[in-house]
Amino acid sequence: MSETNSGRTANPAIVALGGGHGLYSTLTAIRRLTRKITAVVTVADDGGSSGRLRSELGMLPPGDLRMALAALAEEADGIWARTLQHRFGGTGALAGHSVGNLILAGLTEELGDPVAALDEAGKVLRITGRVLPMSPIALTIEADVSGLEGDPRVSRCIRGQVAVATTPGKVRRVRLIPSDPPACPEATSAIEHADVVVLGPGSWFTSVIPHVLVPELHEALLHTRARKVLVLNLAAEPGETAGFSAERHLHVLSQHAPDFTVDHVLVDSGSVPEGREREHLARAAEQLRARVTFADVAEAGTDRHHPGKLAAALDQVIRQPRPELAGLRVEGRHMGQRVRSGLGGKERVSWR
Amino acid sequence: MSETNSGRTANPAIVALGGGHGLYSTLTAIRRLTRKITAVVTVADDGGSSGRLRSELGMLPPGDLRMALAALAEEADGIWARTLQHRFGGTGALAGHSVGNLILAGLTEELGDPVAALDEAGKVLRITGRVLPMSPIALTIEADVSGLEGDPRVSRCIRGQVAVATTPGKVRRVRLIPSDPPACPEATSAIEHADVVVLGPGSWFTSVIPHVLVPELHEALLHTRARKVLVLNLAAEPGETAGFSAERHLHVLSQHAPDFTVDHVLVDSGSVPEGREREHLARAAEQLRARVTFADVAEAGTDRHHPGKLAAALDQVIRQPRPELAGLRVEGRHMGQRVRSGLGGKERVSWR
Repeated sequence: MSETNSGRTANPAIVALGGGHGLYSTLTAIRRLTRKITAVVTVADDGGSSGRLRSELGMLPPGDLRMALAALAEEADGIWARTLQHRFGGTGALAGHSVGNLILAGLTEELGDPVAALDEAGKVLRITGRVLPMSPIALTIEADVSGLEGDPRVSRCIRGQVAVATTPGKVRRVRLIPSDPPACPEATSAIEHADVVVLGPGSWFTSVIPHVLVPELHEALLHTRARKVLVLNLAAEPGETAGFSAERHLHVLSQHAPDFTVDHVLVDSGSVPEGREREHLARAAEQLRARVTFADVAEAGTDRHHPGKLAAALDQVIRQPRPELAGLRVEGRHMGQRVRSGLGGKERVSWR
Repeated sequence: MSETNSGRTANPAIVALGGGHGLYSTLTAIRRLTRKITAVVTVADDGGSSGRLRSELGMLPPGDLRMALAALAEEADGIWARTLQHRFGGTGALAGHSVGNLILAGLTEELGDPVAALDEAGKVLRITGRVLPMSPIALTIEADVSGLEGDPRVSRCIRGQVAVATTPGKVRRVRLIPSDPPACPEATSAIEHADVVVLGPGSWFTSVIPHVLVPELHEALLHTRARKVLVLNLAAEPGETAGFSAERHLHVLSQHAPDFTVDHVLVDSGSVPEGREREHLARAAEQLRARVTFADVAEAGTDRHHPGKLAAALDQVIRQPRPELAGLRVEGRHMGQRVRSGLGGKERVSWR
């Protein structure tokens, strides 16, 4: 880890944990900051092309891995990135399959190892960095969901990522099956040697929290000397986090991994109204020993992060002096550099 | 075309026309002789993975094109060549599909052009030369087959490559549907500028003869100044040419394209008994204005060509002085160089 005079690490090693479109956004942003990128991707999907391949061929669900490869491809508009993301249409046996998923399936069967397969695909796409599965085995997500019965105190066990993401009701808790899956060793090693670790944004229960439920990843996240940044979603997600405040997102993460901490929580300034809600959020962040940074990171008119804005915000967070003792209460000690916590403002915005 | 002192062209531009395993053998042989290779491949397959893709996605049947790419891949045992040829197993929707066929399908849909798709796949495989379809549109083969009824004079029309190749009875004639398909312009151009054109070996009615039935390819083959070599199969093929002598293979080719000529017919010396059968073969070759060269080109104990032996035999044929007037009768004028016509020998072997 080489620090420049300004305290900023040049070409920092950044590990991004997540899945789906959230991780795609993070990776698209991070590649503006460094060439040393490791994507660590959830492997619990059981829907669509991924679900079909998982059940037909007994492989890791490839969809989120493929998306991460596409995000890191040298030419996002090059023929191989486009072909990777291409989906067959029509109504035949191939309809809905993405070509990249089928390529990853073929490479994995030939090489007998999903990590080697991802590395080979990465070469053709000339990706920046590396894409890794969180675990070398396909995982299943199981959730306790309440509000499905008349009595809101009764919760029901729902199994499978698609089922969890689409069922009405309130997700209370998620578990992985198996409950103590191995981590991909290259992923734990990348976390241990990282300068920065970014968790989220993404589907909270099915793409973000699963990372802290893999024991070896959780352990690596506790012990790494990397600066850890949690990026909150821009909006609650129907099915998974409908009605959740930003604060509640932090609470449920802590509930799933009580000793998990991060250094920074990065929040879109348009998503959380100034005033009481930001105070609550700051208190929830304290539980994670984190300081909160507000920044405009939204793609106008959408619930997606803007890659350029997210990159700038992450860059600013990384430039902040390292908290000696994490948490908001020590923030004042580092005010030599401006910290955009934004607490106490008045502008009214709503968590969508 | 640069000729060395020995009269041999250094790094000659060779065009190989065919399909399936026959073309795979030729290409594997030819790449030992030159880096300027163009494979021109039949696109009439309607069986297996190719047939399913053709009917599901409305694309060229990719199987024979994929085989040609694999034959020309820089590393035949490299991960991309292996993945290209990898077939999914099991009993699901993907069972039997080759990954390479699916990649070609995706590239073709993204690029909207099968030739551009083949060029892109060729880059990843770092192929020697280029692979082209004989026509930019998928073709259908239709055959008149006799011997299906009690009366052997009655012939029946059978449509589709798989049906033609597997039906019992004797194939009398094949036609393409449509009857005058366009040629791939890059293929006609390659033939026009070639030093050597090699036709066959391969399934005679479904991989070899179709090339002379595409009007623009036929025209290019008539007018090219390239040396033309016809490579005979090592054995008759059940379903297509069961019971055919070597001589009859030449006759049916002439029947389908009466003005088509070649300079050389290359025959495995173990496949045609010396004596009367070779004399008949020589006479049939005269109809094509060709001289016959016998050479040991068989992979011991199989009906396949041995790539090294085939390469050596082709090399020897190419080194022969160019016939001023094609045909066996002029052969004596070139005896300064040994011509292995083998005519008049006594060893008894049988056309399997």
